[in-house]
Amino acid sequence: MASLETIVADIAAEMADAPDRGTVADYIPGLAEIDPARFGIAVIEADGTSHKAGDADEPFSIQSISKVFSLTLALGAIGDRLWDRVGREPSGSAFNSIVQLETESGIPRNPFINAGAIVVADMILGAHEPIEAIGEILRFVRALADDDSIFIDERIARAEQDTGFRNFALANYMRAFRNLRQPVERTLGVYFHQCALAMSCHQLARAGGYLMAGGINPATGHSIVSAQRARRINALMMTCGHYDGSGEFAYRVGLPGKSGVGGGILAIAPGKASIAVWSPGLNARGTSQLGALALERLVQRTGWSVFEAPTE
Amino acid sequence: MASLETIVADIAAEMADAPDRGTVADYIPGLAEIDPARFGIAVIEADGTSHKAGDADEPFSIQSISKVFSLTLALGAIGDRLWDRVGREPSGSAFNSIVQLETESGIPRNPFINAGAIVVADMILGAHEPIEAIGEILRFVRALADDDSIFIDERIARAEQDTGFRNFALANYMRAFRNLRQPVERTLGVYFHQCALAMSCHQLARAGGYLMAGGINPATGHSIVSAQRARRINALMMTCGHYDGSGEFAYRVGLPGKSGVGGGILAIAPGKASIAVWSPGLNARGTSQLGALALERLVQRTGWSVFEAPTE
Amino acid sequence: MASLETIVADIAAEMADAPDRGTVADYIPGLAEIDPARFGIAVIEADGTSHKAGDADEPFSIQSISKVFSLTLALGAIGDRLWDRVGREPSGSAFNSIVQLETESGIPRNPFINAGAIVVADMILGAHEPIEAIGEILRFVRALADDDSIFIDERIARAEQDTGFRNFALANYMRAFRNLRQPVERTLGVYFHQCALAMSCHQLARAGGYLMAGGINPATGHSIVSAQRARRINALMMTCGHYDGSGEFAYRVGLPGKSGVGGGILAIAPGKASIAVWSPGLNARGTSQLGALALERLVQRTGWSVFEAPTE
Amino acid sequence: MASLETIVADIAAEMADAPDRGTVADYIPGLAEIDPARFGIAVIEADGTSHKAGDADEPFSIQSISKVFSLTLALGAIGDRLWDRVGREPSGSAFNSIVQLETESGIPRNPFINAGAIVVADMILGAHEPIEAIGEILRFVRALADDDSIFIDERIARAEQDTGFRNFALANYMRAFRNLRQPVERTLGVYFHQCALAMSCHQLARAGGYLMAGGINPATGHSIVSAQRARRINALMMTCGHYDGSGEFAYRVGLPGKSGVGGGILAIAPGKASIAVWSPGLNARGTSQLGALALERLVQRTGWSVFEAPTE
Repeated sequence: MASLETIVADIAAEMADAPDRGTVADYIPGLAEIDPARFGIAVIEADGTSHKAGDADEPFSIQSISKVFSLTLALGAIGDRLWDRVGREPSGSAFNSIVQLETESGIPRNPFINAGAIVVADMILGAHEPIEAIGEILRFVRALADDDSIFIDERIARAEQDTGFRNFALANYMRAFRNLRQPVERTLGVYFHQCALAMSCHQLARAGGYLMAGGINPATGHSIVSAQRARRINALMMTCGHYDGSGEFAYRVGLPGKSGVGGGILAIAPGKASIAVWSPGLNARGTSQLGALALERLVQRTGWSVFEAPTE
Repeated sequence: MASLETIVADIAAEMADAPDRGTVADYIPGLAEIDPARFGIAVIEADGTSHKAGDADEPFSIQSISKVFSLTLALGAIGDRLWDRVGREPSGSAFNSIVQLETESGIPRNPFINAGAIVVADMILGAHEPIEAIGEILRFVRALADDDSIFIDERIARAEQDTGFRNFALANYMRAFRNLRQPVERTLGVYFHQCALAMSCHQLARAGGYLMAGGINPATGHSIVSAQRARRINALMMTCGHYDGSGEFAYRVGLPGKSGVGGGILAIAPGKASIAVWSPGLNARGTSQLGALALERLVQRTGWSVFEAPTE
Repeated sequence: MASLETIVADIAAEMADAPDRGTVADYIPGLAEIDPARFGIAVIEADGTSHKAGDADEPFSIQSISKVFSLTLALGAIGDRLWDRVGREPSGSAFNSIVQLETESGIPRNPFINAGAIVVADMILGAHEPIEAIGEILRFVRALADDDSIFIDERIARAEQDTGFRNFALANYMRAFRNLRQPVERTLGVYFHQCALAMSCHQLARAGGYLMAGGINPATGHSIVSAQRARRINALMMTCGHYDGSGEFAYRVGLPGKSGVGGGILAIAPGKASIAVWSPGLNARGTSQLGALALERLVQRTGWSVFEAPTE
Repeated sequence: MASLETIVADIAAEMADAPDRGTVADYIPGLAEIDPARFGIAVIEADGTSHKAGDADEPFSIQSISKVFSLTLALGAIGDRLWDRVGREPSGSAFNSIVQLETESGIPRNPFINAGAIVVADMILGAHEPIEAIGEILRFVRALADDDSIFIDERIARAEQDTGFRNFALANYMRAFRNLRQPVERTLGVYFHQCALAMSCHQLARAGGYLMAGGINPATGHSIVSAQRARRINALMMTCGHYDGSGEFAYRVGLPGKSGVGGGILAIAPGKASIAVWSPGLNARGTSQLGALALERLVQRTGWSVFEAPTE
């Protein structure tokens, strides 16, 4: 096997030439204006070694990848009671589908579809002011990545707020079922800001380290969650991390992962590596086209699929 | 860590005393009459060592677990063209739901819901006689388990045929979309017989060995599928193996698995073990109540979850 | 107002020149081969006067229009217990949708969608032989039209049987919910034969006379159903007679009606006329394109809409 | 036949003793506190004669009955272009279902479900201030009823605004499909006020006169809509006026009608009478239990069903 450094560099080179780069999300200017030619990859190994290639230090809008961190934060705050209000099953439908909520009494299928993440944001908000809850999320992600330069892109947050009618619909709908407890505008204020977190691949891979290392932040040695909870978050990323493309991602890549409409993907090889890729063009399911391809190649060349029998 | 032999024995002892054993399927006499007190477990390690406890040598109706073997057989016969007629995504609905077929042009979500497995049976049948296709499946499973005593329970097959109106509905519906190619009665004849395979936990764990060992039957050294295909079948079992309870199984157990309404579960710890459990009482999702609990404990005690960061 | 004779003749002349004639059903040869240029209309007034134009004496396949007569027959046989197994609401979906059955326990929305008419056929069949039930339906329709030359087109019935996979799916699905009592093949045998009734516009308009005249066959004076039941069947034709195009038909035409995929429509102006039109080309909802247009014009020129305030 | 005066008095007497009065809506205090014993009926004949019994002069919250008047107003303002944004088919689902919007691109099934009426309110609002649009609706209804004492119950409007999360969900959802053009809060402001119109049975029956009389207000002689449009609104009331209970209402009553959650029903016997009933207890479909029963008896005793063949 080639060295990981070489593998990462090779993949970045291959992606630079890839002809089919998917379609950049265009529902808000802050995303639409991103150059589809961008590609970045960062890999942090269990021992802390890091490998980067391409635009790995360029911040991008992590969008739904933030749902992994907000779920972790909410579980820490209220524990498994969280699951009274959010399910743990793949939805079998698109990220913003409202149909399932009608037949299942306003309980979202899982915390990674929009409806589920909005409920999680509602829990984090609780009796606080939105500005406090947003600050708490930002501090948590900065601590995970051990990097205080991570910021929230206010322009993106504001644009989401102005155009996020489906999210307003989801939130109001859950409020009708009393599965949202705080005023809709306040909860969505938190949600839109969390989605507007700007991070580079390198920062993101570092922030995901605790999921690779049994709940311990490998950079700082701090315990973020129990080993069992880390496993379970990984399981949710495997079955639900890519909306209606989760099965395909598991089939092709074989790692727990979470994608964002900004073109980022965080993937975890438990015990081995935390990986972040970024390329703004999306496939039909809303997952980064080249990001998924890069991860598929990385796993093929490293043997990191969780479904792989290790060869001696 | 206790020895695996001890762990397996302990679990069987714990399950013997479990108060909540779920509900035995009662839609056909051949299943309804099974004693809910039965419990068996068999674990085959990568080196071939086997551990058994409880009713591990008692044959039971493997039902939907057979879908793993028929998928493997059909992929061997026609390759990835299979995926033109069957999807790879979790369904977000019950095992026998027909709704999704209406909105998705008769293409079943995945090969492990009934509709998907019926299409796979249709492919295996092809231009052959049903009796030949059934024979081929039986020979394949006997070869996987290296055990010619495995048989098809004709009484069960006949009862399914007489009462399986939903499966007749699914098959006719897909025929209307031309996604079934052979006459409905013939394809279902194959399907009902495959589901009526009777195997013990020990036989089942042996038959699943190739999925643990990168596609190689560890008992015989024969290559059954490529390592990539073994990984991919594992991925499908992880995201789709338990119908609308797949997310929960991944969350609690963390292994690729496939359940059957007869109370059996086959679970794979890649590179480590092939595991079969059996207890006839089912939970609300149709998965063996004690079977899932036993696997959860086994994984906790062995650290075999694919989402676990190995500790040194 | 022009005389009715003139109105009918004018409409037939206008339809002969109509450029957009819809699409002829092509799922079986017996329908596909019909010349789209055909158009017929017959109007029977309350006093028995009849007006005909175009191909009004040419027999065509009445298809789903037969559901009105089979409903009438079944209500006569078992009375309002029929409604335990069939609803009375518009379905909001296509004629052969199976989705609603899954969420509503196998009870079809109304007797005019395929699923509902199959349940009605199951009731007519009861403990009899299919050949007897088919004979009973044929005799009933002949008596309604007072015309023993009406026949069942066996070639059409056989073609439906060979290709009606969706109907087999619906029937098996309802059997799974025990809302079909007889073997699926036997019930569908009755259903396919009833749909294969061949009648001319003139025969059809005569057969519908009892719905115009408070339940009394105006030609023979025989009481077919009570006045209340006649009103109620008319109400069902108004709200459910054209599947997912029922609202549009009520909006444009304003009469109770029932369409068939063979291009026929039976419409009732209570107290005034029984009307049958035929033109084989269908609109997107499966209703005869020119048939609906002809009825719209007839109602405009006669003031027969049930929603019209009569002008003195 | 008894005189209409007697029929109306008899029905009111019968309803006073009716044991099963349904369930009063309790989602806002302004409705929940209404005495379930109330019952009123008013009938205005074509010649202007009016008959009243019970609480016929007591104002109640007309709620969704207002959708008939707002539809009429919007059609007058923008004509049949209205139908580009709203359908004309029964929905086959509950009054506040959001499922259909997802599969049909944000176009509501008809103007009488909440989503449809919100779009109509959006059209009436247009570029105006909500206060102006609300004033226009109020003036229109006052003119229809020729009664300036009709008012909007601000307390009800405010309560709807504070609890109407499902309506906020519907509105935001349609906004996401660009089928709402004005800001959600403004459009819903109009909608909630229109629903809070307080009218008595007598006022309501007078306001519905134009639908009975071919578009002419019989009290004033003013033309409100064309005769064709009056027919068409009646047709929509027949097929869609009672949500998922429209088929049942047509079956039992046989008149175009529109119900409101406040317990009122407006029903039209074209050319014969405009009828309003009120009793606050609702059946499972949200239609007044005694209101529907009273109309059923009225129609039986008068022969006013549109599906009835008049007897000489």
